[in-house]
Amino acid sequence: MGFLWLAILLLLAKVSSLIEKVGQPAVLGELLMGVVLGNLILFGIDWFEPVKEDDIIKFLAELGVVILLFQIGLESKIEEMREVGWRAFMVATVGVVAPFVLGTIVVGPLLMPGQPFYAYLFLGAALTATSVGITGRVFRDLGKLQTREAQIVLGAAVIDDVMGLIILAVVTAIVTSAVSMDATESVSMGAIGLITLKAVVFLIGAIFLGRLLAPRIGEGFSKIHTGVGTKFTIAISFCLIFAYLAGLVGLHPIVGAFAAGLMLEHVYFRRFEKPEINEDIEQAVKNANPETQQQVKTVLDRHNAHHLDELVAPLGHFLVPLFFIMIGMQVNLRILFDPKVLLIALAITAVAFIGKIVAGIVAGPVNKYIVGWGMVPRGEVGLIFAAVGLELGKKLGVVVISDEMFSVIIIMVILTTLVTPPILNYLLRKQPA
Amino acid sequence: MGFLWLAILLLLAKVSSLIEKVGQPAVLGELLMGVVLGNLILFGIDWFEPVKEDDIIKFLAELGVVILLFQIGLESKIEEMREVGWRAFMVATVGVVAPFVLGTIVVGPLLMPGQPFYAYLFLGAALTATSVGITGRVFRDLGKLQTREAQIVLGAAVIDDVMGLIILAVVTAIVTSAVSMDATESVSMGAIGLITLKAVVFLIGAIFLGRLLAPRIGEGFSKIHTGVGTKFTIAISFCLIFAYLAGLVGLHPIVGAFAAGLMLEHVYFRRFEKPEINEDIEQAVKNANPETQQQVKTVLDRHNAHHLDELVAPLGHFLVPLFFIMIGMQVNLRILFDPKVLLIALAITAVAFIGKIVAGIVAGPVNKYIVGWGMVPRGEVGLIFAAVGLELGKKLGVVVISDEMFSVIIIMVILTTLVTPPILNYLLRKQPA
Repeated sequence: MGFLWLAILLLLAKVSSLIEKVGQPAVLGELLMGVVLGNLILFGIDWFEPVKEDDIIKFLAELGVVILLFQIGLESKIEEMREVGWRAFMVATVGVVAPFVLGTIVVGPLLMPGQPFYAYLFLGAALTATSVGITGRVFRDLGKLQTREAQIVLGAAVIDDVMGLIILAVVTAIVTSAVSMDATESVSMGAIGLITLKAVVFLIGAIFLGRLLAPRIGEGFSKIHTGVGTKFTIAISFCLIFAYLAGLVGLHPIVGAFAAGLMLEHVYFRRFEKPEINEDIEQAVKNANPETQQQVKTVLDRHNAHHLDELVAPLGHFLVPLFFIMIGMQVNLRILFDPKVLLIALAITAVAFIGKIVAGIVAGPVNKYIVGWGMVPRGEVGLIFAAVGLELGKKLGVVVISDEMFSVIIIMVILTTLVTPPILNYLLRKQPA
Repeated sequence: MGFLWLAILLLLAKVSSLIEKVGQPAVLGELLMGVVLGNLILFGIDWFEPVKEDDIIKFLAELGVVILLFQIGLESKIEEMREVGWRAFMVATVGVVAPFVLGTIVVGPLLMPGQPFYAYLFLGAALTATSVGITGRVFRDLGKLQTREAQIVLGAAVIDDVMGLIILAVVTAIVTSAVSMDATESVSMGAIGLITLKAVVFLIGAIFLGRLLAPRIGEGFSKIHTGVGTKFTIAISFCLIFAYLAGLVGLHPIVGAFAAGLMLEHVYFRRFEKPEINEDIEQAVKNANPETQQQVKTVLDRHNAHHLDELVAPLGHFLVPLFFIMIGMQVNLRILFDPKVLLIALAITAVAFIGKIVAGIVAGPVNKYIVGWGMVPRGEVGLIFAAVGLELGKKLGVVVISDEMFSVIIIMVILTTLVTPPILNYLLRKQPA
């Protein structure tokens, strides 16, 4: 393993960007490349099997999605997020409640009868997930991160993550108390309250603390060193620390990384060196006419304002494709071979689509389809929900998520994840800029 | 572990660059920070102990030194290396033979009598190592990579690595046949010949193949995608593949990474997008006078030629400090407490210095001290030699490297590694630019 594997995965990811030639976002190519590599075993080729279990590549992939959300945060503006805050909250709420209710009460009992009620609760919970990485990447690939739709989806996905966390806690508590009868309802409520509180305190605290600390940290380190390396290191450390803190309170680390990106602004780094080229160009135009100098200055200022994005970009080029390839590799095509499971899965996938697309209705005066579809991909968050249910069942000695239901959830995750990029791509390209 | 640890190590590395305020290279600060962190346990603080054994941080550190040598290779020119090729070969030869002879025949038997001859052989072998990472970093920190002295040292260090590999193979073969009497001398000679051949074929083959392939790979991928991300990925993959190939033939991966950096030239990427700012600036000055336009064009061309270096730099900021901190953390200050071992170690360290500094004499019309001192640091290569000896002894069931001798080698590695940066720094700053 090691260096050669990294090189192979990175090169294959780049080959997969051939998909852009047919107008699809690069992320779809990487996901599909992952699906192909992860399923070569079906043809007796086991070369890529060790990659699935490699701890270092897993870590790099996880770091990749953290860096991606940090980049997306850097490119988003907190003011723009605040502007759409109420809409994002509405979209998140509908996008959580609709699939949860549909899954738990309607399609669960209807399509997979005879299971305990808490199994349906988990199915409903898994349907509420939203993977902001995939949608964010599509908006980013197409240069649409600054649109109102993108801001609503990104905001809603973060709020969604908090709600999902609470639902997961509630459902876990209900299942645990239903099975063991040890925990009283009131204790569960306390635990739920605590988790809710932690999540809300984290998000609000992070934003306030971050806005307070970031300028001081920039100021402080500028006394040690004003080099580009220091600027880069502070930014990345800020991202990593918030990712860690999010994980600490039970949120997905990407929520923390996104918050860190939102908080950092280039003005905090005004004491640091500008990109080297700025000085050289200023030197080169110093005898030009005032108009040219002004135009050049505008370009250089804009460039300097994006210096942080540029510094983080290579790290993204290195790590982000690994994440999407690894997500793709988790897709096991073998489970598609059971027609009964496949049919149920298709029906539940339809619910998964509908449950999120209706959320677009409350998005206000924007393209409601784009918002709705933007919330659809379950990605790794959906897989985490299913895994938690499986794990909980093992711990309690009961079946919370049956093998059949696990397969159904996996197919739902695959389809929502793979189908959304091309549809979102289509909707975004159709829309006038 | 994970995100938080990475952030802590990166921030501490940046704090350690305070050492630049007293005119020392940043790498020394990182090494010393590593020494401090790694020895906090002496004061009962065990926070950083898990870092020493963390596989992911170890991998990132190893990747760090690979990226560093790749960067150094990118900044060096193959023509300049060829110009100093003969001198580099001479310096490497003297720098290997002198410490080997001194260690094996003189100071080994004199200072640590009563050990088997092959123990002295290994001591001599450990003295031949050169760690190009540390010297390269000092030259780089001071912006002196383009000097003739730097080119000779870098070239010599690579040749030295090949010679060291051959010596290690020869010594291992001699020890093995001396102990087991199974292998005949002729078999060992065959094995030695094979290793020599592999190393030489790798280096020559890499240079020819690389020069042949790199332009075609650049051309090929430009048909898939001409984005900055693709350019970056090809360069990094090239580096990783050569690092892997070097490891495959038994060379240190950094030799491959350095060769890859030497081979890649920005002309191979002429079909790829230029940095975004180039276009913006060209647009901004299109109404300026011809003289200004020409000056701006010169700056932009130079900037474009270094685009690859700039793309790799953030990865270096992220990974390289981890390597030097990890090297520092391997320093166990406890072994300095035995006065007898310490005295022997100081004597052998003196030999380690002398053995390399005399190599500077054959460096031709340059500053011989800079070249000589540039070869001194043993760094991780010295540790690898000691570790191989220890391992071989365990395998054969004899003592090849005694605990005492291991401590002596470690102290020698520490001192050559820690003392060289400030001295080299002094010599380089004294020299007129």
